[in-house]
Amino acid sequence: MPTLTDATPATPGGGAAAPQAGIRVDFETSPDRYRHWQLATGGPVATLTLRVDAQAGLLPGYELKMNSYDLGVDIELYDAVQRLRFEHPEVRAVVLTGGLDRMFCAGANIRMLAQASHAWKVNFCKFTNETRNGIEDATEHSGQTWIAALNGTAAGGGYELALACDQIVLVDDGSSAVSLPEVPLLGVLPGTGGLTRVVDKRHVRRDRADVFATRTEGLRGAAAVDWGLVDEAVPLSRFGDAVRRRADAAVAASARAGDQGVPLPPLDRTEDGDTLRYAHVEARLDRAARRADILIQGPGAPPPGSAADAVAQGAGYYPLALARELDHLILHLRTNELDLGTWVFRTRGNAELVLAYDQQLAELAGHWFGGEVSHFLKRVLKRLDVTSRSLIAVIEPGSCFAGTLLEVALACDRQYMLDGVPEEELAGIDPADGEAVITAGAANLGRYPMGNGLTRLQSRFYGRDGELAAVTGRAGEPLAAADAMGLGLVTLAPDDLDWAEELRIALEERASLSPDALTGMEANLRFAGPETLETKIFGRLTAWQNWVFIRPNASGPDGALRRFGTGTPPGFDTTRV
Amino acid sequence: MPTLTDATPATPGGGAAAPQAGIRVDFETSPDRYRHWQLATGGPVATLTLRVDAQAGLLPGYELKMNSYDLGVDIELYDAVQRLRFEHPEVRAVVLTGGLDRMFCAGANIRMLAQASHAWKVNFCKFTNETRNGIEDATEHSGQTWIAALNGTAAGGGYELALACDQIVLVDDGSSAVSLPEVPLLGVLPGTGGLTRVVDKRHVRRDRADVFATRTEGLRGAAAVDWGLVDEAVPLSRFGDAVRRRADAAVAASARAGDQGVPLPPLDRTEDGDTLRYAHVEARLDRAARRADILIQGPGAPPPGSAADAVAQGAGYYPLALARELDHLILHLRTNELDLGTWVFRTRGNAELVLAYDQQLAELAGHWFGGEVSHFLKRVLKRLDVTSRSLIAVIEPGSCFAGTLLEVALACDRQYMLDGVPEEELAGIDPADGEAVITAGAANLGRYPMGNGLTRLQSRFYGRDGELAAVTGRAGEPLAAADAMGLGLVTLAPDDLDWAEELRIALEERASLSPDALTGMEANLRFAGPETLETKIFGRLTAWQNWVFIRPNASGPDGALRRFGTGTPPGFDTTRV
Repeated sequence: MPTLTDATPATPGGGAAAPQAGIRVDFETSPDRYRHWQLATGGPVATLTLRVDAQAGLLPGYELKMNSYDLGVDIELYDAVQRLRFEHPEVRAVVLTGGLDRMFCAGANIRMLAQASHAWKVNFCKFTNETRNGIEDATEHSGQTWIAALNGTAAGGGYELALACDQIVLVDDGSSAVSLPEVPLLGVLPGTGGLTRVVDKRHVRRDRADVFATRTEGLRGAAAVDWGLVDEAVPLSRFGDAVRRRADAAVAASARAGDQGVPLPPLDRTEDGDTLRYAHVEARLDRAARRADILIQGPGAPPPGSAADAVAQGAGYYPLALARELDHLILHLRTNELDLGTWVFRTRGNAELVLAYDQQLAELAGHWFGGEVSHFLKRVLKRLDVTSRSLIAVIEPGSCFAGTLLEVALACDRQYMLDGVPEEELAGIDPADGEAVITAGAANLGRYPMGNGLTRLQSRFYGRDGELAAVTGRAGEPLAAADAMGLGLVTLAPDDLDWAEELRIALEERASLSPDALTGMEANLRFAGPETLETKIFGRLTAWQNWVFIRPNASGPDGALRRFGTGTPPGFDTTRV
Repeated sequence: MPTLTDATPATPGGGAAAPQAGIRVDFETSPDRYRHWQLATGGPVATLTLRVDAQAGLLPGYELKMNSYDLGVDIELYDAVQRLRFEHPEVRAVVLTGGLDRMFCAGANIRMLAQASHAWKVNFCKFTNETRNGIEDATEHSGQTWIAALNGTAAGGGYELALACDQIVLVDDGSSAVSLPEVPLLGVLPGTGGLTRVVDKRHVRRDRADVFATRTEGLRGAAAVDWGLVDEAVPLSRFGDAVRRRADAAVAASARAGDQGVPLPPLDRTEDGDTLRYAHVEARLDRAARRADILIQGPGAPPPGSAADAVAQGAGYYPLALARELDHLILHLRTNELDLGTWVFRTRGNAELVLAYDQQLAELAGHWFGGEVSHFLKRVLKRLDVTSRSLIAVIEPGSCFAGTLLEVALACDRQYMLDGVPEEELAGIDPADGEAVITAGAANLGRYPMGNGLTRLQSRFYGRDGELAAVTGRAGEPLAAADAMGLGLVTLAPDDLDWAEELRIALEERASLSPDALTGMEANLRFAGPETLETKIFGRLTAWQNWVFIRPNASGPDGALRRFGTGTPPGFDTTRV
């Protein structure tokens, strides 16, 4: 189980009355510590079984009855998804099923939701959404097809978990159903993509989706198949066979190949006051300024000579280590440091080495491990895109914003670059490092698509094909500030006389603005161009849910979330807006 | 100016403390009554000048200084947009400019926003967005190119109004700027598409958009051009010439043709207690059930023989009259009847006549008047798509849900159809009318795209091409309930024994659900498939804005909206979520 520690003191505005104040969530776990899941591997078909320990909720105040879940359950699920990809190259199909009788999963725990602060609910939904998207990513890119074997009812978030799988088989026993009872029971929306996936992924007709999502008891058996909510409904006697047949077919169709997995040991990390240190990443938390200063160290040595050597380095392979550390840091800061509204990214190191690793990842694209590392980096970068913090890249002499690390800068809302060599030492800048440069590389041209399906460069130059082509034409070339400005790769490039002041003003101004307005603004500006299932979930659905969550009809003292299970029906403000 | 009447008593939950409680908004006006705009026509170039009467706000409690606007100003703008399309076939370019010195428009009035209830703000933004989309629709489909001639600063909603124009010319006088100061000044988002149009329409780079939208003073002159915020910045001495040159070019490029316009006289409507009557539409407001029952009468006679005859009928031409009446009713119910959460649509009349008018509109697609009528119907149907009410179509014997009127049913969240001929008279149903039928027609196959660019049938059968083809293959054929069910055109088709009970339960259930959750759910289910600038504005941006509006950081006693202009800076909960 993820560990919990009491943090001193609760952040202001964190919702002191909420039970999660003062709680720190740890996002690291491993199968031997799972309380809620069993992961069975040993061949091409893995089975992941949900059997929630009702007494092992992450927070006090609720029991996880009927396989309902909280963030702790989902942290374990995320861990399992990651391990299946890295530790189990032999797994080509994952059967997701439940360990209780007649109840696959009752969804997010309602008492937990009812007592949670708004911030907790939002972060919980975001992480849960990302994990479900990761399941779809594994099916699409790793040759690991997820199959939901619903051995009982899948309600709310339980059905949404099934929706993230490629196929859904429901036991046809006269009682097991799929349902989205959030609207009629709780006065909120299904929070993890249910509405979007029902119409956009499973193509359920919108009027049927309307009936389904307002019908507490959901649909069973043949009706669920007919409406497209599940792929197959099978009597219990044939249930195992039906699931196995689908798993075997998925295995046969998969091109995934690899024998030896890469273990993911605990991260090497320490905490020293307000400094968090990983092997390659360090974050200094400036609470007075409400800012996290994040420094990424480039690789210290050239990449290993071969795919086998990379596998042998395992979790120590620089790009994988970097992905794991950034991933953990993002989740930690998002959930445990709500008050740090601005994240500033710096890098330090040798750009050539960064590009050498990128080159190797390109060469290993067809190798299972190389592919997994690239896709993991992609998912970590996507986490940045949907993070409700202002992201600022600071590009200084000695930095190594090239290729994959330039992508971190491109995920930011703004890029500041020091123009020229400072005449004397500035804070943290040594004139001996020469001038700052950035380098676009092949990794910026397609390896890390955003949720909208475009690269960050395509999103940046959306509708400006000539400017995109100009940048692409300079790929591989170190660009000093003037060129970077001219090409539109950075926002501002002050010289050493203005640098410190410009940066100070920008960061202070940012910290003075309304946190909510910034969240909404950034969510809108980051995704120019086309939309996908993923951007719909994080953009439209999440925004509506944020609004619904905070309205009294859901969360007020008479709201549906609070009144659920009390026997007293909710009292609604009936105004429609 | 739109008229205001004190309504008896304020609806429960309407926000009794808000000044708009007890206020009824009338959406009808005409140029002779404008208080804020001057519309100059008389050739191919029309000029629409904003000179707001500061004392003529729609509500008490604020002055409309510096050409700031409220809903009343936008009602006049909407009227002008409509009249330009129907009354002025000769107009091929519209110059939108300001009548004050150095200030084109300061955006939505802040005091008005600060004192408005959440529902008022949401409805205000929605209507204003629809009007701006209508400007783009005129540019795209009517050969009326809108050109913003910014003779002074365009701030916030003022710049968003300019963004809805095809081209923007800004006077370069050392002080006039374009800006989106909502985030830094007010702690809210630009509410009418600003963020979306900046990146998705004008292709401003996202980091620059971030700087721009957090910079109170905006950008001027060459910098505004360089960033893509305006098309041209011209010194005052050459300003008129530059605008005229663009207008002349637009006129030359337009294919709009027509000599005699069609006047839009006041609607023929009466109000009798809780019944609203128009010539072809009637709405009965059932306050106890929180429902509006809307009855649309089909045409009483065949269409006129020619385009000239249709023009001669003018506002009496059935499809135009229907569009105007529905448009007015939708706006009225949305704004003035917040408590009526469900709208039930019925029709009555001759389906063959409906299809005959559809046929005529198809034949007149190339005629300016026929085109305008079709596009108006399209916009009215789009209003339904973004209306935060549950929409239910009830298809009974004697109805005429065919073609354009079937499209109303397809815009609904559910469709209920009575199967068979009732043995005896049911409420409102005469056995002599025979069985209910619906007819898909050419009008359902492309004339009325939704905001997502798909027809309502394409959205309904998204990802189910075979089912769409099956429906298309039966176009023109009256379909009884069994066929309509089989083809997926209706949700439920109870027979006469179950009809009344099924309907009663469905409507009562709907009224019992959380109004907010329904709004969020419907907004997500109605738009399967691709997204566009328009769906992004109504889906993503609007949802984020709804959330931001209701958070204490904007609307609480210490929030930025309430503190603006007081000299006291806002007090923020600095938590980022």
